Amino acid sequence: MARPKVVIIGGGFAGLNVAKGLSSANADILMIDRTNHHLFQPLLYQVATATLSPRDIAAPLRSILREQKNLKIEMAEVASIDKTQRAIHLSDGTTRDYDHLVVAVGSRHSYFGHPEWEAIAPGLKTLQDAVRIREKILSSLEIAERVADKEDQRQYLTYVIVGGGPTGVEMAGAIAEIAKKSIKDEFRTFDISETRIILVEGAPRVLMPYPESLSAIAKDNLEEMGVEVRLNSIVTDIQPDGIQIGDEWIATKTIVWAAGNMASPMLKTLGVPVDRIGRVEVAPDLTIPGYPEIMVIGDCSMSIDLKTKAPLPGIGPVAMQQGHYAARALTLRLSNKKVPPFEYFDKGTMATIGHGRAVASVFGLQFSGLIAWILWSIIHVAYLVGFRNKVVVMLEWAWSMISTKRSVRLIAHSKN
Amino acid sequence: MARPKVVIIGGGFAGLNVAKGLSSANADILMIDRTNHHLFQPLLYQVATATLSPRDIAAPLRSILREQKNLKIEMAEVASIDKTQRAIHLSDGTTRDYDHLVVAVGSRHSYFGHPEWEAIAPGLKTLQDAVRIREKILSSLEIAERVADKEDQRQYLTYVIVGGGPTGVEMAGAIAEIAKKSIKDEFRTFDISETRIILVEGAPRVLMPYPESLSAIAKDNLEEMGVEVRLNSIVTDIQPDGIQIGDEWIATKTIVWAAGNMASPMLKTLGVPVDRIGRVEVAPDLTIPGYPEIMVIGDCSMSIDLKTKAPLPGIGPVAMQQGHYAARALTLRLSNKKVPPFEYFDKGTMATIGHGRAVASVFGLQFSGLIAWILWSIIHVAYLVGFRNKVVVMLEWAWSMISTKRSVRLIAHSKN
Repeated sequence: MARPKVVIIGGGFAGLNVAKGLSSANADILMIDRTNHHLFQPLLYQVATATLSPRDIAAPLRSILREQKNLKIEMAEVASIDKTQRAIHLSDGTTRDYDHLVVAVGSRHSYFGHPEWEAIAPGLKTLQDAVRIREKILSSLEIAERVADKEDQRQYLTYVIVGGGPTGVEMAGAIAEIAKKSIKDEFRTFDISETRIILVEGAPRVLMPYPESLSAIAKDNLEEMGVEVRLNSIVTDIQPDGIQIGDEWIATKTIVWAAGNMASPMLKTLGVPVDRIGRVEVAPDLTIPGYPEIMVIGDCSMSIDLKTKAPLPGIGPVAMQQGHYAARALTLRLSNKKVPPFEYFDKGTMATIGHGRAVASVFGLQFSGLIAWILWSIIHVAYLVGFRNKVVVMLEWAWSMISTKRSVRLIAHSKN
Repeated sequence: MARPKVVIIGGGFAGLNVAKGLSSANADILMIDRTNHHLFQPLLYQVATATLSPRDIAAPLRSILREQKNLKIEMAEVASIDKTQRAIHLSDGTTRDYDHLVVAVGSRHSYFGHPEWEAIAPGLKTLQDAVRIREKILSSLEIAERVADKEDQRQYLTYVIVGGGPTGVEMAGAIAEIAKKSIKDEFRTFDISETRIILVEGAPRVLMPYPESLSAIAKDNLEEMGVEVRLNSIVTDIQPDGIQIGDEWIATKTIVWAAGNMASPMLKTLGVPVDRIGRVEVAPDLTIPGYPEIMVIGDCSMSIDLKTKAPLPGIGPVAMQQGHYAARALTLRLSNKKVPPFEYFDKGTMATIGHGRAVASVFGLQFSGLIAWILWSIIHVAYLVGFRNKVVVMLEWAWSMISTKRSVRLIAHSKN
């Protein structure tokens, strides 16, 4: 009998853990990813803000999985999935078939019905996004130095971050560290007191899913670092030279989008129910109802927490645990055994605000300040893939704490 | 009396050394560069071949020169120079005037009358070039894995480097290390014995300016590493799917150009004599005849060696020494003192072929093998700007020697 064909689409937290969990499976496994690397997304904002290099938080999938002889990797883009023919159509026109399929394609940003905002206010999901945002921030300072007129200059020295979730809070803190600290003494036509960082959030507090006390601490910390935090504020327009927040027009050339996610549009080709942000609604065993050979996991999956009955959030720990689970479930299914439902084990959440400042809610306990930051650092380094990357990231952090300099201040691609 | 205005165009080896040499000058200095960083070009091929990250060999100009209060930096592109009005026109439409000007804009690649080849066969001068070549090399391996047909596959596994100077030799050696060693066991549809690296040189030997014995050693080393070295071979056509070398058509998707330089076309706006590769012909004191307030230095300058009467080559040591000289000459000129002519002190040349292999000709002595490689490593690390970069580059080299892995195997920008 031929070995079953297993296809995993996506090499993020979810997909990578499926592949690793199937290392001794008697199957032909194919992993398809648009890029050649696994990306540690929680540290992506540090690439966007010039502390880390792309390579520090990315590892080639082939290198991670080189020993796994039952697995082949293809760098390719999936155009559509035909669930009745059990076929995957790639954008190069070729097709791959499967006996079992795991879909873990992640999510992109949602612009709430304003796709035209994306070109002006980039989001942060890929290395390319991060480098683009880094170059936007650094270039705006360069242009400010060149522009003689103070009025003109101001829009280049104003940074607006839309969305007060963990990514928005982390970005605002990190941009404040650049614009209020790292660049001290480097410019001649303006002073760092003239730079302005504004964080906009529609809800009444930042870090909504966190305990209220931590939201308050995060806001205080941001304000101490020079960030203006605007709560209950709705963005109604974004233009190349500014943003409309409620009644106020703020002139700015740099807007970062950290509000709202949307699952990959490719998922629609599955022809099954999706929720309002495009995530596939799955059964308790993460399969599509009626198609036990297809599992959808990670950010692109809408699954219900067995305990709380609430939808699981699109965060790293859920994706990793679902990846582990999918590998176990597949192994059971390949030997015709019964598969138990997925259970999420919530260890807590944490977000960093700046060097030495973070908030964390772990096993019901709340931490803030340096202790939370140390906790955050340990956990993030522990989950980074690759010994080399762990060492380099720790060295970079040590270096940036000692020197307050940003190491990766490169504008490589843009022309001004 | 107003302080004299000094403008330096270019922050490479030449321009940076002018700026540093004028740190205590009683003048208003403006440095203009297209990018925000100083680039250590001799190690650029290691970025292109995935050993180093862009940030390892680049340092922000503002950071290097932050203490220099008499100096302002503008990231801008120079469109033209009006030497009679003493004005520099930027591409954004604004103008900067000067009392003294130092032009150090470097060079780009020359395609010998075939500018259409550039899009297919990129050269290696900027970080953007290096990342582009890295992504081309890595993507070709990815596509080869996906392509089922052996005939189709071959063109993706064939790498052609045009030009057998130091850059070409270094690139060929480094690509051989990737394609014959680093990727071992990572692909399922081809074997590393199927990869092919071809170095093409029009002259009868590689490393033409070096002693003949070193050229022979370099060729032997390359061949041991699996590189096919084609001497006396002329490229007559380059197409997206291959290259014509004499009578032979080689099907390939990856061609790297390392043959011939050309000074920046902007120099023509000076309206003074240039040589056949566009370099400005300068007097022994590196000024333009008739315009003692304009010096042209580095790769974009055609200056004659006082001792040998031959034109000086476009290499790092010449640029650095001319930068030091220009700062001294300007200081003398500002106090109305006589300026001696520029004298080049030739310390020798060296090129690396692979890990542990190099050739060097230093003070008339010739070295090869591990000793030359150690010499090469020490000198290159010593000249790298910034303590942090020195440490990181040494660690990366140690890591890649131990692991034979390439650390920076990222495809961030291309879509396949």
